[in-house]
Amino acid sequence: MPVDYLIGVDLGGTKIHTALATGNGDIVAETRIPTKTARGSAFVIGQIAATVRQLLKQVGVSPASIKVIALGSPGPLDISRGVIQFSPNLHWHDVPVKLLLEEQLSIKVIIDNDANAAALGEYMFGAGKGTKNMVYITVSTGVGGGLILGGQLYHGSSDGAGEIGHTIVLPDGPLCNCGARGCLEALSSGTAIAREARCLVNRGGGKNILNRAGGDPGEINSVVVAAAAAEGDPEAALIIDQASRYLGIGVANVINLLNPDMVVLGGGVMEIGEPVWRGIRQEVQSRAFQPSRERAQIVPAALGQRSGVIGAIALAMQ
Amino acid sequence: MPVDYLIGVDLGGTKIHTALATGNGDIVAETRIPTKTARGSAFVIGQIAATVRQLLKQVGVSPASIKVIALGSPGPLDISRGVIQFSPNLHWHDVPVKLLLEEQLSIKVIIDNDANAAALGEYMFGAGKGTKNMVYITVSTGVGGGLILGGQLYHGSSDGAGEIGHTIVLPDGPLCNCGARGCLEALSSGTAIAREARCLVNRGGGKNILNRAGGDPGEINSVVVAAAAAEGDPEAALIIDQASRYLGIGVANVINLLNPDMVVLGGGVMEIGEPVWRGIRQEVQSRAFQPSRERAQIVPAALGQRSGVIGAIALAMQ
Repeated sequence: MPVDYLIGVDLGGTKIHTALATGNGDIVAETRIPTKTARGSAFVIGQIAATVRQLLKQVGVSPASIKVIALGSPGPLDISRGVIQFSPNLHWHDVPVKLLLEEQLSIKVIIDNDANAAALGEYMFGAGKGTKNMVYITVSTGVGGGLILGGQLYHGSSDGAGEIGHTIVLPDGPLCNCGARGCLEALSSGTAIAREARCLVNRGGGKNILNRAGGDPGEINSVVVAAAAAEGDPEAALIIDQASRYLGIGVANVINLLNPDMVVLGGGVMEIGEPVWRGIRQEVQSRAFQPSRERAQIVPAALGQRSGVIGAIALAMQ
Repeated sequence: MPVDYLIGVDLGGTKIHTALATGNGDIVAETRIPTKTARGSAFVIGQIAATVRQLLKQVGVSPASIKVIALGSPGPLDISRGVIQFSPNLHWHDVPVKLLLEEQLSIKVIIDNDANAAALGEYMFGAGKGTKNMVYITVSTGVGGGLILGGQLYHGSSDGAGEIGHTIVLPDGPLCNCGARGCLEALSSGTAIAREARCLVNRGGGKNILNRAGGDPGEINSVVVAAAAAEGDPEAALIIDQASRYLGIGVANVINLLNPDMVVLGGGVMEIGEPVWRGIRQEVQSRAFQPSRERAQIVPAALGQRSGVIGAIALAMQ
């Protein structure tokens, strides 16, 4: 009897991370290549197909042994039709990635939102193992999320669920990329942290932050702000604290609404560490209902930068 | 073969509404009596048992034909143990209502949160028939909610899910009964509307509102404010508009997080009508993601004051 294998692909604007795994999710081989975004969607899909063929060859597995290729992609997606409707990082519009890959590889392809894939990865192989209702939040350039409810990925009615980054936590707050004001993403993302620091510099403050950015306001990012805060700069510490507190409000809101047993937080901003966790804990403590708050463990993601590809493998196992 | 019957009980601080229904939910008989809250929990549980016996006698049905009694109650509850942990309206603490009723009636008893019961009632018999993911929000003295996800009542990990009234929509907003600031309930409930109007009167404004309350600030409630607004009083209209807009933010947040196919809004404040709907629509339009917003119908509850008892029958059918 031939062994069944699975392939997971984490498709991002800068890299394509592909893994070949056994049916129970053990990764046998993986590869990471830069996404040639500028060459357009047909070229990038060709990159994925070539990578898959190369992995199969490398391990000596025939395409017929691959049950499914699962691809995690930034959304919005039409999951059932396998179409990437819009991807700002890839500059794609309505790309039928499932169809195109299936034509090239003759292997079944499924797709899902990258945050959903990462949520499922944490649930099956990471911090959320053994939970039943788990909320995954990733805080980096943007703020994304995925919901595991009753042990299953919850997609909502048109594959749009989990957009915790676009829940409003400050109605008159800063404008978000989505067009609304005061979204969690506009207050707690790495982009929001950098924006606040640049505002401060524009007002004549933020000397330490600016120095760390080599004197160029355009070089200010959340890593620079966090480093200044870690050195004791009170202005930088305040910016990190504010962003963390709004994140805590977002976490309190999902605890009160969804009463999960776990909230998993990942992404680059969480790597700032204790100053961010402190703000989250304080807001959750003062704003979430006691019984639901006591039920919900709030923990760091366990899979780090491999969450995307491990999540894609988890998707393939569904 | 004996026909199976079900009993639903809507236990409130002012009335106990009980119905006897066939197995497919057709109500055969119902009764509503005042809750003798002051006499304590044992007395009130005796009232429920007496009402059930009376209904059985009236219809000529034996207790053995009753499959289950489902009781909807204000929470927090321990649903699996059948314990009302705390009910501010009934002044109950840790009352094992399931055990006590089962002892008196020898019929299986299940309990659930009253907002969950109403959500299930709307889903099975009201506005939400045929939906898959439905968010129910009731706006009256407080703001409650219930979630139907994948066609099932979603309870969360410790029966605490659905507390949309205690999601934060204005971090530095007014203090809520729950102890947190800026909960939806503290901004959009009937209580919040009355509080804003009393604040206005205390500052020397709100003449029309005060007149409508017979000159007594203690008599100001949301009905009085809505009536003044309907007569063209701009101060009252502003208060209703503000409350509606926060409600719209709460609705936008559940749309972005849960991508439901329907949001059902009920409760006394919704009876104010168009001024409240207008505020909700405007905020949802400007703050919810287009695809999820277009997927979600936002509609009034269909069951009105009978939502509690019909919801309890729906619970009994599960």
